[in-house]
Amino acid sequence: MTVQVRTVDAGSADDAAMAARLFEDIAKMSPDTEGVSRPAYSEIETKVLKYLEDFAVENGLEVWYDACCNANFCLPGDRDAEGVVVVGSHADSVPAGGNFDGLAGIVAGLVCLVRARRSGAALARPVHVLAMRGEESAWFGPCYIGSKALTGTLSEADLAACHSGDGRPLSDHMADVGVPVERLRAGEPMIDLSRIEAYIELHIEQGPVLIGKDLPAAVVSGIRGNIRHRTIRCVGEAGHSGAVPRAFRRDSVLAMADLLTRLDEHWVTILAKGNDLVLTCGMVGTDPDKHAMSRIPDEVSFSLDMRSLSPTTLDEMRKLLASEIRQVERDRKVRFELDREMRVEPALCDPDLVARLTRAMESAAQEGFVMPSGAGHDAAVFAGAGIPTAMVFVRNRNGSHNPHEAMELDDFMAATEIIYQFLTGAS
Amino acid sequence: MTVQVRTVDAGSADDAAMAARLFEDIAKMSPDTEGVSRPAYSEIETKVLKYLEDFAVENGLEVWYDACCNANFCLPGDRDAEGVVVVGSHADSVPAGGNFDGLAGIVAGLVCLVRARRSGAALARPVHVLAMRGEESAWFGPCYIGSKALTGTLSEADLAACHSGDGRPLSDHMADVGVPVERLRAGEPMIDLSRIEAYIELHIEQGPVLIGKDLPAAVVSGIRGNIRHRTIRCVGEAGHSGAVPRAFRRDSVLAMADLLTRLDEHWVTILAKGNDLVLTCGMVGTDPDKHAMSRIPDEVSFSLDMRSLSPTTLDEMRKLLASEIRQVERDRKVRFELDREMRVEPALCDPDLVARLTRAMESAAQEGFVMPSGAGHDAAVFAGAGIPTAMVFVRNRNGSHNPHEAMELDDFMAATEIIYQFLTGAS
Repeated sequence: MTVQVRTVDAGSADDAAMAARLFEDIAKMSPDTEGVSRPAYSEIETKVLKYLEDFAVENGLEVWYDACCNANFCLPGDRDAEGVVVVGSHADSVPAGGNFDGLAGIVAGLVCLVRARRSGAALARPVHVLAMRGEESAWFGPCYIGSKALTGTLSEADLAACHSGDGRPLSDHMADVGVPVERLRAGEPMIDLSRIEAYIELHIEQGPVLIGKDLPAAVVSGIRGNIRHRTIRCVGEAGHSGAVPRAFRRDSVLAMADLLTRLDEHWVTILAKGNDLVLTCGMVGTDPDKHAMSRIPDEVSFSLDMRSLSPTTLDEMRKLLASEIRQVERDRKVRFELDREMRVEPALCDPDLVARLTRAMESAAQEGFVMPSGAGHDAAVFAGAGIPTAMVFVRNRNGSHNPHEAMELDDFMAATEIIYQFLTGAS
Repeated sequence: MTVQVRTVDAGSADDAAMAARLFEDIAKMSPDTEGVSRPAYSEIETKVLKYLEDFAVENGLEVWYDACCNANFCLPGDRDAEGVVVVGSHADSVPAGGNFDGLAGIVAGLVCLVRARRSGAALARPVHVLAMRGEESAWFGPCYIGSKALTGTLSEADLAACHSGDGRPLSDHMADVGVPVERLRAGEPMIDLSRIEAYIELHIEQGPVLIGKDLPAAVVSGIRGNIRHRTIRCVGEAGHSGAVPRAFRRDSVLAMADLLTRLDEHWVTILAKGNDLVLTCGMVGTDPDKHAMSRIPDEVSFSLDMRSLSPTTLDEMRKLLASEIRQVERDRKVRFELDREMRVEPALCDPDLVARLTRAMESAAQEGFVMPSGAGHDAAVFAGAGIPTAMVFVRNRNGSHNPHEAMELDDFMAATEIIYQFLTGAS
């Protein structure tokens, strides 16, 4: 790789206009009744990558597709370099989703490359911008399909997962866009991971922290792992709501309320100790076919999602869940039935990269701020493959996975500036 | 009325066999896929009353139908008496229900009349056994239709309520069996209430208290009133389950759990003070169209049913509900939206009748035991019409309104003995 030392320019109004145009054009290519829909491994996704290809060629970048049919971009001559920094994210969206979840990370990488190309600024290391397909779980069930395929970790079960719309398996949809599915089944990485020195991903924040802190961007400390149960059943005994005294009851709903309240109290304690945790019961329901206002509920089902940056905290919550269940079962004469526990380990960002990105924030005249990511990202797959990984978050209103997600262009440019400062090696 | 003083006989095995035959024959007339179905104001109900008419005539009783097409039975000569004790209950059942809910009270009255007729035992007062139609709310929505019609309290809204099966209004179904619906609309009692000295109803217990106490029967102190909400919505804010720290959340499900747990704690306190209360949240649910394991629930709906023998306790719970809602709203930044409160006042049984029935229990060599009724009954309508009212409960397994309700014939005969002892004036 040839490093050219030139003057670093500031992100210009032209860069912002370019980014705005990319976002607008791609939104127009993927409209839904509300928001945008860019299905994983669809023709719309292919069209978006082709659009980016044309844009990159116009701007003097080198473009190629990897073996998994993701688009890759670099400065001329960097394609076969060693010690590459990959700046990546995904091109697909959820159905009727927002335009920025995924796409922002690709546009940020392209803005950095075009800016470096235009100004002749030196990049500290060769940079590949990676526009991946298929990150969202909404289409097939499994998530991070593009990055799992690249790193050789897509399972047979993933490949057999069926599309929520047409019911055809993921493997067929991947084959449709040209992915050599048989090679994936071997479980070998489809790119040379040894050539990647770091993986960096810019992404919209999917929570309200940066809005609450009034900051445009943050460096991410890691991606929370989780312990999840899709269905916990609490089984008690039905009875007439008026005719059964409290001492004779085995009320499943009050037992569930008791358990959730106990877990909520543990959550407060764990936060007070300075540990990281979020806890959600997103789905709850008695059976509409038999529940009634005047019937003691014999059964209720609910989900549980506990996430933390710390495996120790996840272990602790697992034990507390079990012990509180035992206590509530004894107190209230009910039985809890848990489905299979799903566990994803936390993916900590590389401490050195986090430190360098934080310094890059300061170079970009921003207050250094580091926060966890609650949502999962392709970055976790690269971290799992042993590649030093880090992320930058952009302030975003209204969460993600909905048409109301709202990232301001100024915030996007401020976050892109952190990546650019990092890539040009100032930090 | 002519009172004939003769020797009181004990309930014989013949009486038990007679009761068993009535229960069996009527169950066979109203089979469903499981249990029995005797729809209110249906041909099946009419057939059951006709069967009872034939049985009564065979056994030397006088039979007539009142203006609301309910069947009435008495000893010869008592039809036009003053100071009548009415022993009543209902002939209809819920869909796929048990055979004893309602029917047991009618059979008990008939057993007493036949026994008195056979033995020539003196009745302290003239007795009318009243087999009412249409008590269950399962068919049209409103309950106690038969007794409300008799007492002139059936509303226009009740008459307009549509059948759950064919969608035709109650008024049409009543007209089908011969009820002069236009007279009901005047709101005048359809029987001469001034001639009724007391209303007594035997009914299966719809809870587990007598099983827990190992007693065959009880005298009822009163029918719990209630405050009910079919739908309380708790509204918070959606968000990604991993991405929103606790301090930023407005989690509707944890707020609901908190509220229910607080109400449950108040329940314990109220019982500890010796007051009567039951509390049930029978229906709860997040929206299946938008809830997800990884989505902070922005909304959950639930029902609430609070019952007590004491209007003061109901008032207290009403205030506690409001104050705890305010507290949880403040703590958790959610909003609770309550639908219209439904309130039914408690119906206390007549203390003198309760005392006399309790003495009758002792005459029947049973331990005197008095308990509240949590479910509503026609008795509450008669009490509301100013008629001294009392009830006797029979031990019953598995609650009611389901095909598994299980009353033992021995317990039924023991409870009927209490009524018989009362009617023959020993107490």
